[in-house]
Amino acid sequence: MQQEEQFSSLGNLGEFGLIDRLTQDFPLRQASSIKGIGDDAAILEFLSGRTVVSSDMLVEGVHFDLSYMPPQHLGYKAVAVNLSDIYAMNARPTQITVNIAVSNRFGIEYLDKIYEGIRHACEVFEVDLVGGDTTSSYSGLILSITAIGEVEETKVTERSGAKENDLLVVSGDLGGAYMGLQVLEREKTVFQANPSAQPDLSEYTYAVQRQLKPEARKDIPELLEKLGVLPTAMIDLSDGLSSEALHLSKASELGLRLYEEKIPIDPSIYKICEEFKLSATTIALNGGEDYELLFTIPLADHDKIKGNPHFTVIGHMTEKGDTAKLVARDGAEVPLKAQGWNSFEREDEA
Amino acid sequence: MQQEEQFSSLGNLGEFGLIDRLTQDFPLRQASSIKGIGDDAAILEFLSGRTVVSSDMLVEGVHFDLSYMPPQHLGYKAVAVNLSDIYAMNARPTQITVNIAVSNRFGIEYLDKIYEGIRHACEVFEVDLVGGDTTSSYSGLILSITAIGEVEETKVTERSGAKENDLLVVSGDLGGAYMGLQVLEREKTVFQANPSAQPDLSEYTYAVQRQLKPEARKDIPELLEKLGVLPTAMIDLSDGLSSEALHLSKASELGLRLYEEKIPIDPSIYKICEEFKLSATTIALNGGEDYELLFTIPLADHDKIKGNPHFTVIGHMTEKGDTAKLVARDGAEVPLKAQGWNSFEREDEA
Repeated sequence: MQQEEQFSSLGNLGEFGLIDRLTQDFPLRQASSIKGIGDDAAILEFLSGRTVVSSDMLVEGVHFDLSYMPPQHLGYKAVAVNLSDIYAMNARPTQITVNIAVSNRFGIEYLDKIYEGIRHACEVFEVDLVGGDTTSSYSGLILSITAIGEVEETKVTERSGAKENDLLVVSGDLGGAYMGLQVLEREKTVFQANPSAQPDLSEYTYAVQRQLKPEARKDIPELLEKLGVLPTAMIDLSDGLSSEALHLSKASELGLRLYEEKIPIDPSIYKICEEFKLSATTIALNGGEDYELLFTIPLADHDKIKGNPHFTVIGHMTEKGDTAKLVARDGAEVPLKAQGWNSFEREDEA
Repeated sequence: MQQEEQFSSLGNLGEFGLIDRLTQDFPLRQASSIKGIGDDAAILEFLSGRTVVSSDMLVEGVHFDLSYMPPQHLGYKAVAVNLSDIYAMNARPTQITVNIAVSNRFGIEYLDKIYEGIRHACEVFEVDLVGGDTTSSYSGLILSITAIGEVEETKVTERSGAKENDLLVVSGDLGGAYMGLQVLEREKTVFQANPSAQPDLSEYTYAVQRQLKPEARKDIPELLEKLGVLPTAMIDLSDGLSSEALHLSKASELGLRLYEEKIPIDPSIYKICEEFKLSATTIALNGGEDYELLFTIPLADHDKIKGNPHFTVIGHMTEKGDTAKLVARDGAEVPLKAQGWNSFEREDEA
C-alpha cells in the first residue's frame, strides 16, 4: 500500500502543525470568502440569493478501499461527491470544510497526497477550503466534508418541483462507477492470490475511472442556463437511478414512467456487464455513485435539449396519485424499487 | 453500557429510514432556514452581515469514552463545542449539520438518545438541524458537526484584533472539565476492578458536569452587547488557556502578560487538584475543554465589566515584538507554552 512508501509520524508534528501543513497553498478564490482557515470559524459573505449547504461522510472500508483507491483520488472524490449535491440544487459551490480522522498507521506524506487531491478538486470546481478539523482515530480513515454554495432565489431546483407531464432527463451515462468497482474488487482478489500478477485494466479504463475519479457535473447547470432551460426539479445520482427517481416522485407527489430502452449506458459498460453476467439495466438502476444529474423540464423545453449529447430523455412525470414505474423493453410496467446501496445492510452481511 | 439495554439492528431500518427517524421533531426556528433536511442540500438565506462556519469531529476513544459518557450528553456536547466556536466570533449560531458514523454494535435506541441530546442542544442554543449524513463504520462512533452563524460585519471578533494594552478577560472558571475527566477515569478503573462498587461522585459534581455537559457561552456575547463592550479579539478555550492565549498573541502580533494569581478556578476544582496532587494553575493553563471565552477589550471599557461575576481580567496585551508570558505568584515571568491536548501524541503513547 502506498502509505508505507514514506513515513513520518503524525505525533511529531502535533495537531496544529499538521493542520497548517495540510492546508497551506489553498488560496481563496471566491468573493464570498472573507477569511478562510486560521480563526475559530471561517467568515463568509452572502448578500443575495440563497445559500445551500450539504454534508457527507466517507468511511474507510465502507465507502472506499485504500488497497485500490490512491490517496489523491480519494481526496478528489470526497470533494466531488459533496459538490454534486450543490450542483443538484442548481447552485454554484463556493466553499468547503474538511474534517479528517486518521490513525497513526498513516504517515504525513500520505495525508499530503489526500490534500493534493482535495486541492486539485478546489481548483477544478473553483471552491475555497475554509475550515476543518484534523484528528486521530483508532482505526480507519474518515473524511467528513461540508459544501456551501450560492444560487439565485428563483433558480433553486428542489426535488419537489416536478410537474405532471414534465420530461425526465439524465446527464451522461449510468452504471460505470458500479462496474468499475466490480472490476477493482476482482483484481484485488487476483492480486491477493498472486501478488506478482500485473493486471491489464486497459479494457476497463472508463469504468475504473468512473469509480475512482467521478466528476461532479459542474458543466450541466452552466449548460442548462446557456440553453435557457430551468429544471423544475433536480437530484444527483449517488444511490442509483431507481432510488433517486423515487425521491423525485415522492417529493413532487407525482408518478413517473422511466423507459428501460432509453437509459444511457456506455458500450464499454455493456461489455463488462456481459462479462460479469449482470443486467446492465439493473446496474444502471441500482448501481449508484455515477454522480450524474437527474432532472425534470417542461415538455415545451424539449427542443432546447434535443440532440444534445450531454442529455437523455428517459421518461416523464405522470399524474398525482400514480406511482413510479419502469417500462421494460417489452412494454411491461414494473414498479420502481429503491435497491440503492445501504451502508448498514452491507455491514450486516460482513 | 447503555447501548445494550435495548437493541434494534440498524440494518433493518436502512439508511434513509434511519435518517428520517433520527431527524424527525427538529422544527426550524431560524428565519434564515428556508428548507432543512430532505433535499440534496439545505437552503438558507443570509441577506446581511457575515456568515461564519466552523466544523469539528469527535471520535470515540479519542475525544470521548462511552463507558462514562451517556449518549444524550454526547449529542449535547458535540453540538455545544461546535457552537462555542461560533460564539467566539461574536456571532449568533443559526444552523448545524450532523454527520454520524456508527457500527452495528449500536442499536437504533442508542442513536435515538444521541439525537435527543442534539435536539436538546438545538432548543437551548436556538439552532436548526438542517442536514447531515448517517453511515456505518467498522469500529467506533464518530460525530462530525458543522455550525453556521450570523454576525454584523462590524462586530466580528477575530483572533487578530487585539491592541497593545488591551485587557485580557476570561469568562467563567477554568480547569473543571479536565479534573472531571480525571475523576471519571479513576472511577472507571475502580469499576473495572470491582463492578459492584457504587461510586459517590457528589463531591465532584461540578467537575464531572463540566466534562460531560459543557455549555457553550451563548450568554457572553449577549451580555457584552448589553454592557456596550465590543471585544477587539476573541477565542474559545477548547485546548487550554495557555494554547489559546498564544493564538491571540500570535494572530494579533503582540506580547501579553497573564497573571497566575488572577486565573479563575472554582474552589471545588482546587480541592480535586490537591487530591490528585496536581497544580491547579497547570490544569487551568493546559487542561482544555472548558469552552469559556477568552477575549481582549480596550482599557477604557474596564469599568463596564468590573465586578461582573462572569468576567475575570487575567492580564493584558503588550507591545509588538514582545512574547506571551505568565507572571507567577512570586513575580517571576515564565514563557507561556502550548501544552494543550494533541490527539496524535495521545495516540502515540497508547
